[in-house]
Amino acid sequence: MTRTIKVKNVLIGGGNRVTVQSMTNTKTADIAATSEQIERLIKAGCDIVRLAVCGDEDVNACKQYIKNFDIPLVADIQFDYRLAIKCSDIGFGKVRINPGNIGDEDKVRELVAACKANHTPLRIGVNGGSLEKNVGSGAEALAKSALKNVALLEKFGFNDIVISVKSSDVVTMIQANRLVGKECDYPLHLGVTESGDVETGTIKSSIGIGSLLADGIGDTIRVSLSGDPVAEVVAAKNILRAVGLDKNYCEIISCPTCSRCGYDLGSVVRAVREATNDVDFPLKIAVMGCVVNGPGEAKSADLGVAGGGDKAVLFRKGEIFKTIPMGDILPELNKLIAEFKKR
Amino acid sequence: MTRTIKVKNVLIGGGNRVTVQSMTNTKTADIAATSEQIERLIKAGCDIVRLAVCGDEDVNACKQYIKNFDIPLVADIQFDYRLAIKCSDIGFGKVRINPGNIGDEDKVRELVAACKANHTPLRIGVNGGSLEKNVGSGAEALAKSALKNVALLEKFGFNDIVISVKSSDVVTMIQANRLVGKECDYPLHLGVTESGDVETGTIKSSIGIGSLLADGIGDTIRVSLSGDPVAEVVAAKNILRAVGLDKNYCEIISCPTCSRCGYDLGSVVRAVREATNDVDFPLKIAVMGCVVNGPGEAKSADLGVAGGGDKAVLFRKGEIFKTIPMGDILPELNKLIAEFKKR
Repeated sequence: MTRTIKVKNVLIGGGNRVTVQSMTNTKTADIAATSEQIERLIKAGCDIVRLAVCGDEDVNACKQYIKNFDIPLVADIQFDYRLAIKCSDIGFGKVRINPGNIGDEDKVRELVAACKANHTPLRIGVNGGSLEKNVGSGAEALAKSALKNVALLEKFGFNDIVISVKSSDVVTMIQANRLVGKECDYPLHLGVTESGDVETGTIKSSIGIGSLLADGIGDTIRVSLSGDPVAEVVAAKNILRAVGLDKNYCEIISCPTCSRCGYDLGSVVRAVREATNDVDFPLKIAVMGCVVNGPGEAKSADLGVAGGGDKAVLFRKGEIFKTIPMGDILPELNKLIAEFKKR
Repeated sequence: MTRTIKVKNVLIGGGNRVTVQSMTNTKTADIAATSEQIERLIKAGCDIVRLAVCGDEDVNACKQYIKNFDIPLVADIQFDYRLAIKCSDIGFGKVRINPGNIGDEDKVRELVAACKANHTPLRIGVNGGSLEKNVGSGAEALAKSALKNVALLEKFGFNDIVISVKSSDVVTMIQANRLVGKECDYPLHLGVTESGDVETGTIKSSIGIGSLLADGIGDTIRVSLSGDPVAEVVAAKNILRAVGLDKNYCEIISCPTCSRCGYDLGSVVRAVREATNDVDFPLKIAVMGCVVNGPGEAKSADLGVAGGGDKAVLFRKGEIFKTIPMGDILPELNKLIAEFKKR
């Protein structure tokens, strides 16, 4: 169990819900474009939004965002510890620093003093592409860099820390997080960095983030994709759902079909997805082609349909509900979905 | 290290390349449709194709496929051990049986005799939705059922075995495979079953299959998606690539961009992807927005570009190659990609 870190009204670690983060890719100083993107990220289900802060113009714009939005905002700082201090002073929910480029101990001490005064947590964000010198490379180097910098913050009496060790290599990222998780109880922010476009990046992120979450490692996650950050939030939520950490949605169990399937299962799955996109309570629907795994999966779902010969069998709450002609599958399922939604 | 199982000309286990499997979803008896699908699966990079065999009409069609295709074919048998014997007799590369429904020991003994005579390996394919009675549920039950049936085959002196323990629940699937992998050295066929449509199913499969592969568990994989099985092969290959088990392609490392990025990185990534889709040798290209992680990632790639101020820096084989205006990124990268392709 990790310790709990408070980022404004959102708690990271300590067994709290695993939160979803993303980052704006508009110009931070462009208040119209950035505000619009923050709004879209909130609407998509993002819990924490990070912004790159590169100068005073950005700091001034961020004062507006902090005033206008309830969602906790995180300042992403590279190179300039004075900017990090300003971001703590103006009320950012958290400041992310990169130990690879933040500078020497004196600078870190000054930053810690500000963060203590303002109750601003720091994320130590280590990245394979910007690792500090003389620690080598690979999973052990990432972990070593993170833990060395944690020790520095601890030396200054600071424990309000979140850690990330990111790599564009999935296996390295998994191993680095396992190493850090063994050595300390600070919450871990998980991400595969520079993971590429939506198609391959989603797969890399799913493996890296998902495998750690499946083993109970990780407290907050950020999927990095080249593209609209809203896609990052969608992928992150799907990862949480896939490992059972978000149950408030409609899970659709559906088979790949084979020669045994006697109806157009694909179109039923698409229609059920469409009809249940707005479900915000735990609901499980099994759409199955035949009698091999059909009855088993359908029985353990809230609603299920399994083909069999030229008929289909509907299941509700683990019991056979009705035998129907194949052509009635969709209207019958829709009726039952509507019933569940009314409750 | 698992033992090696020979499925015609393809080796599973024993440290051989992790192979990609898929399954036709046409009617097996429909020779035109099924042949066309097998061809498309081969073209997509599938190594082994499975077909459901439900009766003698299917068996007859399969004789044609076995004659016409070099790719190893696997018969998927449910319920009927006599069909399994016929499939071994006509020369299928492997037969998959489901211990949940294949019947008693005498039937298995008869099947084993045929498989021994024909040198046909068997896959013990356990599925959460069709688990045999009296083993309970969850990861331990899946593993227990598989190992119990392995012991039965071993009792009959048969060791030509591949094992799969599949569940529609990702965490259950991961845990079940870890349990089986600890207990025996038969090759493991990995899959998340009934994982849903392409979007959510790819994420579930990536986590389940990818996390095991990242730990060195798994010898052959099948992604199950409701839809065209070619999409299963594409996802499977992306999973292998993400965990470093297939290096013969162009890996694109690209950042999610943030306020620091000074050029349209998304369109460069898309163009680079387009220009490198045909690359069948290891090539790594980093497309990075700024100087934070850009130089680090670009240096460790074969080709890289990192934005910085109003210029971009090109890297080749770890060295700075050229500083160019932002507008020249794509033509310059394309020139270098063409050079690599010529070698």
